[in-house]
Amino acid sequence: MDILEVIKTRRSIRKYKKDSPKDLDIEKILEAARWAPSGLNNQPWRFMVIKDKETKDRLAQFTKYGYIIKSAPVIIVVCLDKESSYHYQKDLMAVGACIQNMLLEAHSLDLGTCWLGEILNKKEDVEKFLNLKENLELTAVISLGYPDEKALEVKRKSLKELKIN
Amino acid sequence: MDILEVIKTRRSIRKYKKDSPKDLDIEKILEAARWAPSGLNNQPWRFMVIKDKETKDRLAQFTKYGYIIKSAPVIIVVCLDKESSYHYQKDLMAVGACIQNMLLEAHSLDLGTCWLGEILNKKEDVEKFLNLKENLELTAVISLGYPDEKALEVKRKSLKELKIN
Repeated sequence: MDILEVIKTRRSIRKYKKDSPKDLDIEKILEAARWAPSGLNNQPWRFMVIKDKETKDRLAQFTKYGYIIKSAPVIIVVCLDKESSYHYQKDLMAVGACIQNMLLEAHSLDLGTCWLGEILNKKEDVEKFLNLKENLELTAVISLGYPDEKALEVKRKSLKELKIN
Repeated sequence: MDILEVIKTRRSIRKYKKDSPKDLDIEKILEAARWAPSGLNNQPWRFMVIKDKETKDRLAQFTKYGYIIKSAPVIIVVCLDKESSYHYQKDLMAVGACIQNMLLEAHSLDLGTCWLGEILNKKEDVEKFLNLKENLELTAVISLGYPDEKALEVKRKSLKELKIN
């Protein structure tokens, strides 16, 4: 099956319905994450799933996009395990591949996500708040839930602009 | 459509048939790349498609996995455009998401890929060999073609090992 349509129709979703995604769907999304490729198959990604309202509300305070975290019934915190890491750049790309698997799997299940990066400006504070062990580095926060908005139209550069001659 | 099966059955392919993938399929793979998410939608990825045998053979010399580059009819060089970059870590993750889109789209078209990272050990030499402009940083090389081997079984850590308590 050609999955280009799933890839092209995925959008950031910033407003969510109140009902939580099914546990089975959350498991599928983490399963998708688990199967991402990584250099030397080192699988440097680690996940924390947050559903608790109070924790979400407090986490929201660390980013100007906190309203997205508050709106989403589920938050997936993605960390890089520095103990598994063997090449920082490659490991970050692997984490990116892993996140993309989650976004695509969620979209294919009619769930919405938003990849929140701005929160990294408060990385150390968030790591402390979440009580993350020394070996874990915060890399992204993903919001997840049933979309309650029409996704914005977005543009991309043309292939011509992206190709190196 | 639930794309978990595409995600879970994708494997690194290291040996390819001689026939080149159709141009339309290569375009689809780059189209998938183009639609990856990035922070501030900065789309920091750039691509060079190499089909020329001599160029491939010379590129192959920069990595101990050169036999994969030689075997593949098509090579996609992925670079980070430092001029588009706004946050190195986030941009690398975006490039990882973009690469994963390519691997998944290729697999969904029954094409095989291998994400070659070891070549980054010779980053500067490869950048010079490919005559890349100052603003482009080599981030990965992807081999592409029709699989001519049964993919190896690979393992992943269990979800339990990946979850942060």
